[in-house]
Amino acid sequence: MGERIWTAGLAVIGDEILSGRTQDKNVSQIARWLNVQGIRLAEVRVVPDRTEKIVAAVNALRSENDYLFTTGGIGPTHDDITVDAIAAALGVAVVHHPAAVATLERYYESRGGVNEARLRMARVPDGAELIENRVSGAPGIKIGNVFILAGVPHITAGMLDALTGTLEGGRPVVSRTIGSWVAESEIAELLAAAERRHDGVAIGSYPFFREGRTGANFVVRATDPAVVDATIADLTASLEADGRQVIADGI
Amino acid sequence: MGERIWTAGLAVIGDEILSGRTQDKNVSQIARWLNVQGIRLAEVRVVPDRTEKIVAAVNALRSENDYLFTTGGIGPTHDDITVDAIAAALGVAVVHHPAAVATLERYYESRGGVNEARLRMARVPDGAELIENRVSGAPGIKIGNVFILAGVPHITAGMLDALTGTLEGGRPVVSRTIGSWVAESEIAELLAAAERRHDGVAIGSYPFFREGRTGANFVVRATDPAVVDATIADLTASLEADGRQVIADGI
Repeated sequence: MGERIWTAGLAVIGDEILSGRTQDKNVSQIARWLNVQGIRLAEVRVVPDRTEKIVAAVNALRSENDYLFTTGGIGPTHDDITVDAIAAALGVAVVHHPAAVATLERYYESRGGVNEARLRMARVPDGAELIENRVSGAPGIKIGNVFILAGVPHITAGMLDALTGTLEGGRPVVSRTIGSWVAESEIAELLAAAERRHDGVAIGSYPFFREGRTGANFVVRATDPAVVDATIADLTASLEADGRQVIADGI
Repeated sequence: MGERIWTAGLAVIGDEILSGRTQDKNVSQIARWLNVQGIRLAEVRVVPDRTEKIVAAVNALRSENDYLFTTGGIGPTHDDITVDAIAAALGVAVVHHPAAVATLERYYESRGGVNEARLRMARVPDGAELIENRVSGAPGIKIGNVFILAGVPHITAGMLDALTGTLEGGRPVVSRTIGSWVAESEIAELLAAAERRHDGVAIGSYPFFREGRTGANFVVRATDPAVVDATIADLTASLEADGRQVIADGI
């Protein structure tokens, strides 16, 4: 029977994303990192800094997926409510994690010392473990299948780096791309037919208009590299038989 | 009591976002456009090209919000299933819209003529109206409170432009920003206190590390410009009284 697919949900927490002030960069970096771990990003929800919205997203995504990641809202200020909201979602108390307190005391020793706001960043849902933050002071948090990460992308990246290789996953999705200066609407049936001829493969068609011309990239995705290669060969042959020039690795 | 807040949900539909291949640009452009219309983006869900996931997101977001926007999946190829999924969510049939057929026939007259794939882009949930596409051939679709837009950002932008001023909303959220070269953890209580002193205002704190120094921007948001101005003045005075230099309009 089919291989086990591991999935993750992602909750992006922050008014600044929903207001349009900040361009999110975490969806794509977490998606790519997850794929290397053999885990598929199955759904993202972007929610505001409001407890009931965070709780609803966290409970939906953690139960529907093997893993849930969250970004944002773990800083020292009043608008950082992620830890409290996730503790509420899980029905556990919020406690100060001793190792996080020690880390923050060390980090702020030469930066004016800890204060109440800084110690907020040592608060975790009861029972949580820490995720190392190699970039700044405050750690990430792991509780059950929930991974609570920072929102600032380079800090998020450091936490992902610390988690690399620690999560169980399946085979990564492999993808290859070819391109052609063709309107996708001219070869739509050809694409669909190529997808039907190969099991476990998805062909995505991504059109663009560039240098005054219409083109498209075709991305073939599957967990079996041999299936990807066979589909690329088949699709290339089909396009060429239809009189289209194919550009390896896409345009 | 309190003014009516108009909200929108957004469903971003596409495997290419969830795989990390494509950086989404529509969340921020739609968020900013909505704000000008006096509508708040309340939640975003990014879902794959799978009918049941699209249906679930569409039905949740359209019932929880005044409006639902979707992006992606309305092209001519086999992976474009948004129209069918939304029709399924609404429990209506899919039909060819006569005006959309006419538009596509005109658009493709000098581009090789319509074919079956191109006519797919005239398919709409029964009862829908069209949203003008000023950039390429295929129109957007409005049905009830659901607005189905293209995924390619500059085409999305053209459809938003065609919708400008047509949606009922409330007062736009006004925001002003100040900045300071300070660690947010040093002035967290000051920020929270300033927020508490003003009704209907939210203060967001956005830290960064730049030019070797720690700083933060503080964004004050409210629908009443006078409240925003008063909060900015109050927060500026509080920071200066605390010995911090305040940079107007942020860093």
